[in-house]
Formats: sequence, C-alpha cells, structure tokens
Amino acid sequence: MRDVSVTGRGITKFGKNTESIKNMLVEACREALIEAGRPKVDAVFVGNFASGSLANQEILGSMLTNELGLGSIPSMKVEGACASGGLAFRQAYQLVKAGEYDSVLVAGAEKMTGPETETITNAINHAMDNDSSEGASGLTFPGFFGVLANRYMYEYGAERRHLAMVSLKNREYAMNNPMAQFQKATSLEEIMNARPITEPLGLFDCSPISDGAAAVLLEKGKDGVQVLSSGQASGTPLMQEADDLLHMPATYESGKSAYEASGISPEDIDVVELHDCFSMTEIIAIEELGFFDKGKGWVALENDQTKHGGTVPVNTSGGLLSKGHPIGATGIAQIIQIVDQLNGRAVNQVENATHGLAQNLGGTGAYSTVHIFRKKGA
Amino acid sequence: MRDVSVTGRGITKFGKNTESIKNMLVEACREALIEAGRPKVDAVFVGNFASGSLANQEILGSMLTNELGLGSIPSMKVEGACASGGLAFRQAYQLVKAGEYDSVLVAGAEKMTGPETETITNAINHAMDNDSSEGASGLTFPGFFGVLANRYMYEYGAERRHLAMVSLKNREYAMNNPMAQFQKATSLEEIMNARPITEPLGLFDCSPISDGAAAVLLEKGKDGVQVLSSGQASGTPLMQEADDLLHMPATYESGKSAYEASGISPEDIDVVELHDCFSMTEIIAIEELGFFDKGKGWVALENDQTKHGGTVPVNTSGGLLSKGHPIGATGIAQIIQIVDQLNGRAVNQVENATHGLAQNLGGTGAYSTVHIFRKKGA
Repeated sequence: MRDVSVTGRGITKFGKNTESIKNMLVEACREALIEAGRPKVDAVFVGNFASGSLANQEILGSMLTNELGLGSIPSMKVEGACASGGLAFRQAYQLVKAGEYDSVLVAGAEKMTGPETETITNAINHAMDNDSSEGASGLTFPGFFGVLANRYMYEYGAERRHLAMVSLKNREYAMNNPMAQFQKATSLEEIMNARPITEPLGLFDCSPISDGAAAVLLEKGKDGVQVLSSGQASGTPLMQEADDLLHMPATYESGKSAYEASGISPEDIDVVELHDCFSMTEIIAIEELGFFDKGKGWVALENDQTKHGGTVPVNTSGGLLSKGHPIGATGIAQIIQIVDQLNGRAVNQVENATHGLAQNLGGTGAYSTVHIFRKKGA
Repeated sequence: MRDVSVTGRGITKFGKNTESIKNMLVEACREALIEAGRPKVDAVFVGNFASGSLANQEILGSMLTNELGLGSIPSMKVEGACASGGLAFRQAYQLVKAGEYDSVLVAGAEKMTGPETETITNAINHAMDNDSSEGASGLTFPGFFGVLANRYMYEYGAERRHLAMVSLKNREYAMNNPMAQFQKATSLEEIMNARPITEPLGLFDCSPISDGAAAVLLEKGKDGVQVLSSGQASGTPLMQEADDLLHMPATYESGKSAYEASGISPEDIDVVELHDCFSMTEIIAIEELGFFDKGKGWVALENDQTKHGGTVPVNTSGGLLSKGHPIGATGIAQIIQIVDQLNGRAVNQVENATHGLAQNLGGTGAYSTVHIFRKKGA
C-alpha cells in the first residue's frame, strides 16, 4: 500500500452564489489543480447530494472532467447525504493507496439556493428513510436533533447555553474565515434568544442553506499533507431503530476504524473539523470520537476545551454552523481546513499542529467518515 | 492484485413495480446473498441515477445495509446517469482486487413509474449538461440518438429497417426472459410502423420507462465467474462538442482499457450485453467495441451476426429495449446476464460460452464502463 497526500486544494466562498453548480466546481478544482502544479489527473470523483432535485443536474463527474479538459479519464458522483464529500474522498484515497490511480481530483458541491424553501426541505428529507412513517409524520432534521438535545440535557445535566456555546465558538472562528457564509459577530444572548426552530434549537443552532464547492487533489507519495487513514461506517437512518439516541454508532465506528488504521489516538490529534450540522451534533461527535467522555462534551464547552489552548480546537473553519453547509461540499471543505492547518496557513491557525482529523456525517447517522492527516515530513 | 469473482446474483422482474425502491433493492440483494451462501459482506455499493427526483429517496446505501441487517459496514450510492450500475460495480471490483474489501454487495435500482411523464423526462434530462443551451433548446435523449441515426444512415448506407432489426432481435430474446418488461411477439413491420418518437426512431427503437433492481456479490478468489478487467472512460455530455457524431469515444476507450487489462480481444468474446438505450446505440456500440468495422454494424445486423450462430450474440437478455431500463439497475442486470451465460444457466444460453463482456453507457456518451468476465475454471 502506498502513501497518499493532499497536494492541492481549492474552495469557493460559501453562501448564496449565483453561479451554476458546474461553474462552482470548476472554480474550486482549478484552484486545487494550480496549487498542485497541474499534474496529470487519473480520475475525478464528485461528492454531491441533491443536484438532481435542487439544480436539475446530474452527471457532475463527466461534466466537470470535460469542462476541465482532462480527457477521457474515469469519473463519477458519490452520494451519501451530507457525507457525500467524505465518501468521495475515501474512494479516492483507497484507490490511490491501492495503486489503481496515481492521482484523483476529488470535489464536492451543492447548489441549494434558488428553489422554494419547501422544495429544499423536501430534498433534504430525502436523506431519511421515506419508506418509514417518520418523514411522513413530520420528522425533519432539526426535529431529530432537537429531540436528541432535549434527551441529552435531561440525561447529562447540560443546559441550553451549552448548545449556544458551540454556535458562538464556531461563529467566532468563522469571523476570521473569508470563505465563510456568516462573519458577523454575535453573542451568547443573541443565540439563546434567536428565533426558535425546533425546541430547544434556535436559528443559530442549525446549519444554513448554502451554495459552494470545494476540491482537493490526492496524489501518491509524501509530497503534501499525508492521509494516514480512512474510516467509514453506516448506521440506521431510522430514529425508531436507534438503540440509544445519545450515541451515534456510525460516528464512533468510523472513528475507531480510522484510529486503528493510523495508529493515532485522540490524544495525538491537534485539530479537528467535525460535522456540526446542529450545535447538538458537535457535542455528541466530540464524545463519540473519543476526545471527551460520554456525557461530558458539554463540560468541555463550558471549560473552553474545544478552542485554541484547550484539549483540541474543533471547527476552526467556523464549522457547518457558520462557514455554511453546501451539503456535498462540506466533507471536502472540512478536509481543506485540516490540510491548511497542517500546512501552517489556516484561518485560526493552531500552532505546531502535526495531526488533524475530519469527520463527516450523513443523515441522522446513516453514514460517517473519518480521515486522519499528518503534516508533511512530520 | 487478487482474483475477483461474482458469487451470487439477484434481480427483480423489470417493468412497472408497485414496490418501493428500497423493497426492490432488498429483494434483489437477498437473492444474491442466498445464492452466494450468505457470506460476510464488507461493503454495500448502490448504483442509482434519479431516486431523489423520482422516488423522493436518497441514502440508498445506508438504507439497504440497514434493512439487510449487515451492521455498520461502509456503504454509498454511485451516480453516473445510465452507467450508475456499471460504475458501482467497477468501484467494488477495484477495491476487492486491491484488498481493501474481501466482499462487496453491488446493487442497482431505479423507481421510475409513478410521477407524471414530464417529471420523468425532466429527470432523465439531468443526464445532459444543463448549463448549455442544448437541453433548453429542446434536445432530449431520443432527439440526440435520432440525429445520430440519420447521420449514420446517410454516411454508411444503412436503412431504417436495420434499426428495426436491432429492436426485433432484442424482443425475440426477451420473449424467453421471464424478468423482461416486454415478452410479446412483434414483427419488423410492426416496429417500422410504430408510433414515431423522433425521426427516424419509433416506439420500439427506444428503451422504456421501468422499475427494477439487480444485485451481485463480488468476492475475492476464483469461486465464481471471474472478473478479468474493468475499463471506464468519460466523454463529453455536449452534442456540440462531439468531434464526430458517429463515434462514441467513451465506449471505445472503456473497451480498449478493458481489453488491454484482460489480454482478451473482441474475437475471444462469446457473448455480449451492451447499452441499447436506442436501437441506434447498439449498432454504434458493436463497432466501437471492435466486434465489427466502423460503418459496418448494420451489415452485421442484416447478416444475423449478432444472434446465436453469428459472430457474437448481443443482448441475449432482451437488452434495454425489451428487458427494460430501470436506469440504475441496468449495468448490474447486464452483468447478471453475462454471469448467467458463463454459468450455463442463462435465458437464450450461448453454448460453450467462456468469455463475456458487459458495456454500460451513461448520458449521450458521458460515461462508459466495460467489464470482461471468464467462466469459472476456464
């Protein structure tokens, strides 16, 4: 098995973007290819969730390959709800590691603005099992994570303000990120008093509707930030089948696989990007990934342990909550922030960071990927 | 690199199916898993094109894995228009060959009936580049392949009846296939006089709207029909960018890669399933894949060279034209027919078949995959 590195990265500004999904993909990919020194590309993988429903466009792999003038090389789109980007990256990593390809361009994108809000909400709900009664009875993603938040507070003694602390931290990080959707200052009070979305989550506890694209180039060898391992797991897409609402088995299992394959432990990780689709999701993820004990994630927030100077800075890009969440782009954007951190050129740079981790969740725990990275030469 | 074999296969009857896409997938997968002797499965890949737009459902990988009780193993959906099934199969083959997984369940499915015809046509058109003016100016898939057919007849001297011969051959094969959508006898006259769809293509020259699912289990080793090689290529999704309408570079390139990787030549192939989304497409494909000279495919039809007893029997399952074309399922269903042929248990069995080829096309040549197979022990 060969070494695999990220040798280039590109990203569009997240938020409302009047460009098509194709043009956003091309922008991000051109930046990544130029940064990597325009090497030969052997394949193109695109992570995307809902371009058919929201952008009237599929065949993103072929369309992008053609537009970039890369010739007749293999291409495809990978879908796994909000984990689409992470899944596409994983396929590329596995195939470069195995020697099937020497280099793969991996992009993620979503064009979400434009349609009516109801159309967008319906498309997002395609990430639930709609054969079940759950979607039909009115369950939405904010609804699901709201129930988790209530249960979490009841079981572990957390308070509403601990959820708000996640949103505030990520907004404060986003204020330094020119690619982030939200860069306006806020306060714990504003977050706590914001328009309620679903009890107990308010507007600032929920990731927004966003357009955007992100891309990385993976190449064999060690001439870049090295990908040490990939973990992936599936979980139930049904709330009624969850054994314990406060566990996300896919997050845990994907982390476990990635730690085992890399020989790296949570204590070795210097910086983390994880899937804060809701404030509650970040608290559960920092527990499932082994950074804090089960039920103690909120204490870590209370004690600033997920900021610079704490146990491990989490979502220094601003996270999904404030950087934005163009679904298919998210998994790649998370990886870009980790790559930038390990290259010493990130917004909210963590000093002397040598190991980073990116976790990407799909659905209500239907998919999770974890990738672990090491600084070049470290 | 390890040997990889198909050890089990399952398929639903194609046509209108009142079951959900999940239930169709489960039916096909259970059959494949039982046939393979219920081995441990390491990952689940699903090929699907438009389940978001047509079936209000994504996350097919996770949903299927969960419904089959396979635990937290990795899963994903792969999209590449009508080549989605072939692309999913290719990923599985590459990763088992490389040792990343020992076994992968690969399924394909599409649920197309239900919505209004206009909704279905719009969803199918997501397989064009909708940033261009082509779709907006009214180009459809029948329109594209109709233009090709007119050009082909003009350049090479073929006649309308040669197109009809493709449809008739495939219907005659489908009459013996209990899983096929159309099993009613027809005649060259009926095909020639059928309702026109787009000049010169009539109703029988166009593949239908279908529901269906198909699945195969891939395992390391030689205990099944062996996968000798995989070829994949991308092509332009834009008609205006085609250098020559009568060439399908993706089909040619994917065939070339697969032949080179296997050491097998077109002359060694005993039976073929290829992508006859339109009668015209079959004639171009038998040329691009090297079975007949460029411009001479129609002569092969005239001389029965693509039937039993000819150069190579093509689409003995009935093809997309008569077996049906549930988009995501098609690539897997093609492979099932080849596997059945090499196991000596196919409908329209080709005697002493030892090598088979399956070709799956996406869009107007945006994607093509070719897989070459060898009989167990041959």
